[in-house]
Amino acid sequence: MESLELLIARLNRLPGVGIKSAQRLAFHIIAMPEEDVSALTEAITDAKSKVHFCPVCGNYTENELCEVCADPKRSAELICVVESARDVLFMERIHEFRGKYHVLGGVLSPMDGVGPDQLRIAELLERVEKDGAKEVILATNPDVEGEATANYIARLIKPLGVRVSRIAHGIPIGGNLEYVDEITLSKSIENRREM
Amino acid sequence: MESLELLIARLNRLPGVGIKSAQRLAFHIIAMPEEDVSALTEAITDAKSKVHFCPVCGNYTENELCEVCADPKRSAELICVVESARDVLFMERIHEFRGKYHVLGGVLSPMDGVGPDQLRIAELLERVEKDGAKEVILATNPDVEGEATANYIARLIKPLGVRVSRIAHGIPIGGNLEYVDEITLSKSIENRREM
Repeated sequence: MESLELLIARLNRLPGVGIKSAQRLAFHIIAMPEEDVSALTEAITDAKSKVHFCPVCGNYTENELCEVCADPKRSAELICVVESARDVLFMERIHEFRGKYHVLGGVLSPMDGVGPDQLRIAELLERVEKDGAKEVILATNPDVEGEATANYIARLIKPLGVRVSRIAHGIPIGGNLEYVDEITLSKSIENRREM
Repeated sequence: MESLELLIARLNRLPGVGIKSAQRLAFHIIAMPEEDVSALTEAITDAKSKVHFCPVCGNYTENELCEVCADPKRSAELICVVESARDVLFMERIHEFRGKYHVLGGVLSPMDGVGPDQLRIAELLERVEKDGAKEVILATNPDVEGEATANYIARLIKPLGVRVSRIAHGIPIGGNLEYVDEITLSKSIENRREM
């Protein structure tokens, strides 16, 4: 059954889809009603063709500008820098941040050949100056590359007289000291707040 | 971003794909090269249109008969009864079984409205008689419905003078008594073999 094996192989290439999941998905798909299969393939084709990067912030959008950049109520004085467009989705879910975003499109990773020129750093600097940003929040992930990228960008932005901040690291709400890794724990001590 | 949300919703409907996985897959798909996206949708459409049920055993196939039924080296005297076509794939992976299969298309489940007429049981009985089967192995899953289905089929086949067997249940190879559930453990005592 070549076509089934090919489908399994294609699904297996997707992130987080192991061979067992790929088999399960493939068998499920061929057992799905015809119209649901068409709806799935159309949703894929449609999203792929319609969604593109927002020219301002690098977030995904179907329109000229992304929802955040197009929203006049969002302040351009506060820019939150994230690694990927998915991170925007996560940040937006907290419904608290009222500034704008800037998607880097990755993190500095010399091992993988990703230097500053491969990221949207020049665009960020240009935006900071043009929009008169007052603060840049660096919300790259708290791993080695995310930290290095945040430090790199901080060094470029501080001379512009703009406030630069980093998201706080610490013990997650509901977390337990016993199960928190040492780096997080040490960060939670380092970033302690007076009560 | 309607098209992206629609894609996430569609992916979220697939088995084992939670909302987080659906988001991850959707963002991955729209970032994939155009040709990989087409290859994925074509693989889905292709498998859906080409794969159908083998009229003899109920396994999936792209040809008139499935690979097992079409193989003259496989004995029709031994029929292994499984719940789904996926189970055939699992059984075939052990490269040991040289008989044929019969896919029931489910298990007896009165709560879900699945009675004997919803399963390919009549076809099994017909085949057993027509092909002169000598043994029927009942390889439904070792859960309540799988056991009930196996018992039901055994009662129908035994009067035909055909040997009926059930796959062995017990402690998995490499398993540990501590982590095996009580039913499996009790089965492993019940099915003990003299050494």
